[in-house]
Amino acid sequence: MENRIIIGIDPGTVITGYGIIRCQGKKISVLACGVIKIGKHKIDHPEKLKIIFQRISGLIKEFKPKELAIEAPFYGKNVQSMLKLGRAQGVAMAAGLMHDLEVFEYAPRKVKVAVTGNGAASKEQIAGMLERFLDYKIDSDHMDASDGLAVAVCHFFQGNKITKGNNYKDWNSFLKDNPDRIK
Amino acid sequence: MENRIIIGIDPGTVITGYGIIRCQGKKISVLACGVIKIGKHKIDHPEKLKIIFQRISGLIKEFKPKELAIEAPFYGKNVQSMLKLGRAQGVAMAAGLMHDLEVFEYAPRKVKVAVTGNGAASKEQIAGMLERFLDYKIDSDHMDASDGLAVAVCHFFQGNKITKGNNYKDWNSFLKDNPDRIK
Repeated sequence: MENRIIIGIDPGTVITGYGIIRCQGKKISVLACGVIKIGKHKIDHPEKLKIIFQRISGLIKEFKPKELAIEAPFYGKNVQSMLKLGRAQGVAMAAGLMHDLEVFEYAPRKVKVAVTGNGAASKEQIAGMLERFLDYKIDSDHMDASDGLAVAVCHFFQGNKITKGNNYKDWNSFLKDNPDRIK
Repeated sequence: MENRIIIGIDPGTVITGYGIIRCQGKKISVLACGVIKIGKHKIDHPEKLKIIFQRISGLIKEFKPKELAIEAPFYGKNVQSMLKLGRAQGVAMAAGLMHDLEVFEYAPRKVKVAVTGNGAASKEQIAGMLERFLDYKIDSDHMDASDGLAVAVCHFFQGNKITKGNNYKDWNSFLKDNPDRIK
């Protein structure tokens, strides 16, 4: 049976959320879910990026995903914050590219729609949906982890050249074919 | 004699310039200098970043620098372009971090001052100064390469924890101690 492992990442310069899922046919299970926390100040920027890069590389070595999905906002408040965010996205992507993963990016709205059906869903709503359908408890201290998990699930639903037969665009179309997954 | 190899990179999403220098005591020689060109359109963004990442990784493997200096603008026209630039910077830094290089970043103005004494120097002025002092001909089709070379030279002049005895802040202080380098 097809066995896909996807790492989902929501990069940030303060907190980066990640989630790793295994998809066997229609079954999705969570292999790991957490956050990479970096203090807002104290260490200079390349050092922070190094922590993100090393931790993601470590996760890839441990769980051996073949696809990396990244939540990538395309707009932001100001040029400074977008530069920093771009760097965090860049090192996260590089960690994937280095290990020959295919890299996919999704706008936050697309991730929210895929997981909750609502492009303006809150972090709590996303976490709630993920917990319900993945049968996995997200640590309430690490709510940012749910964004990483969400983008991995979003990627699984998108249907791309790797995906064969799992071409679900969102939960609704997935659930229509998999009514047993509703608790 | 101390033998430092520095790779300098000026990342961009269309053209990335690089220069690799060897510093033996007071002698600087150019090991490599060129550009990584990526079409403006055609391939999607992670693919472009992959090319930058792979080429820089290749250069690091070939020339084995221990320090990576990056030219990093902190301001730009709009959030979109800064996000893209941030990503290019991020993958360039990641290529260095992956190979355990120390990563340093310099604002464009600082690079220009270090090389020409003028924070508003043109690309041609920078290339001219580098050619004169490094005794190296920069391909006129690849003027962007000179920015990569310039940031490597800028880093050599900065004096940091690695540098011992070569604590020159710019050409002027370097030349004062090395009058024989003026042609």
